[in-house]
Amino acid sequence: MANLTEFSLAEATAVLARTPASLNALLRGLPQKWVYCNEGNDTWNAFDIMGHLIVGERTDWMPRARIILESGEARPFDPFDRFAQEKESQGKSLEQLLDEFASLRGENLAALQALNLQPEDLTRRGRHPALGAVTLSQLLATWAVHDLTHLHQVSRVMAYQYRDTVGPWGAYLGVLKCGGHSAP
Amino acid sequence: MANLTEFSLAEATAVLARTPASLNALLRGLPQKWVYCNEGNDTWNAFDIMGHLIVGERTDWMPRARIILESGEARPFDPFDRFAQEKESQGKSLEQLLDEFASLRGENLAALQALNLQPEDLTRRGRHPALGAVTLSQLLATWAVHDLTHLHQVSRVMAYQYRDTVGPWGAYLGVLKCGGHSAP
Repeated sequence: MANLTEFSLAEATAVLARTPASLNALLRGLPQKWVYCNEGNDTWNAFDIMGHLIVGERTDWMPRARIILESGEARPFDPFDRFAQEKESQGKSLEQLLDEFASLRGENLAALQALNLQPEDLTRRGRHPALGAVTLSQLLATWAVHDLTHLHQVSRVMAYQYRDTVGPWGAYLGVLKCGGHSAP
Repeated sequence: MANLTEFSLAEATAVLARTPASLNALLRGLPQKWVYCNEGNDTWNAFDIMGHLIVGERTDWMPRARIILESGEARPFDPFDRFAQEKESQGKSLEQLLDEFASLRGENLAALQALNLQPEDLTRRGRHPALGAVTLSQLLATWAVHDLTHLHQVSRVMAYQYRDTVGPWGAYLGVLKCGGHSAP
């Protein structure tokens, strides 16, 4: 593997295809503590994170890919609403969110495949409203790493609930030392 | 939920029962990059982490629970070998490790249930060779948080492979800012 950080559509979609089932296996049917407790103040719990992933499927990744392919840098992406799930998840159960995420992800991966992207398409550029020029491959790589950042967050938020319960072992558990690294 | 950090055997085992399927859904069949690339130097990749989880099932959690119940603080736990998987995983596939972890975890949760632990058992004490006095509830809570720390680690190690590929979005992806928080 000469260039380990080179983008591969097959590799990125392999991650994207697996995240819904991994989160489903982790979260479905869990006692309430693990789903609805957060890290204090305005932080997110697992339910909030699932809602956020759904909003991304609806408004972020594939819509932005289409903007790049249709308009390039001429039309900046619509800004992403990091708090839309507060309204959109209201009245839903965690199980509904898990189903919805899996369904939307499946549709989006089918739509991505239908684009039949060629290597030259992956270098096409769009304009992020805050970050400036980005490429389609960067967008698709970010989609996959965004899944991983929220899997990383879910595991941390869950572990936080037992931060005192583990007693002296806390010194050995890296996840309890994770500051969260929140995006601005 | 009056005391959110209070230990509950049902809550801890709910996490322990889900981790194997969550990791299986995330990792099985992934392209090699996500499984065999690490964070540089002597860090662990996803394959190493699965091997470590298996060693824990064999030598750490339930053996230590039994030492607490049988000998209390009189017999310190055997030290845990954090590198045993280097030998034990040799020649195995990731898929074998995923199967082995799920199988051992199932056996261990059945053995835990068969102990029919009562609330007073959970306060019984053992002796960790480095940390000193610990309780059975702390051991069992740590077993669950240890799963979460390695899910946290797997997601970070995978994301690391695309740290450059995401381009300017790296600024927004918390998992790429995670230092690892390694245990001593």
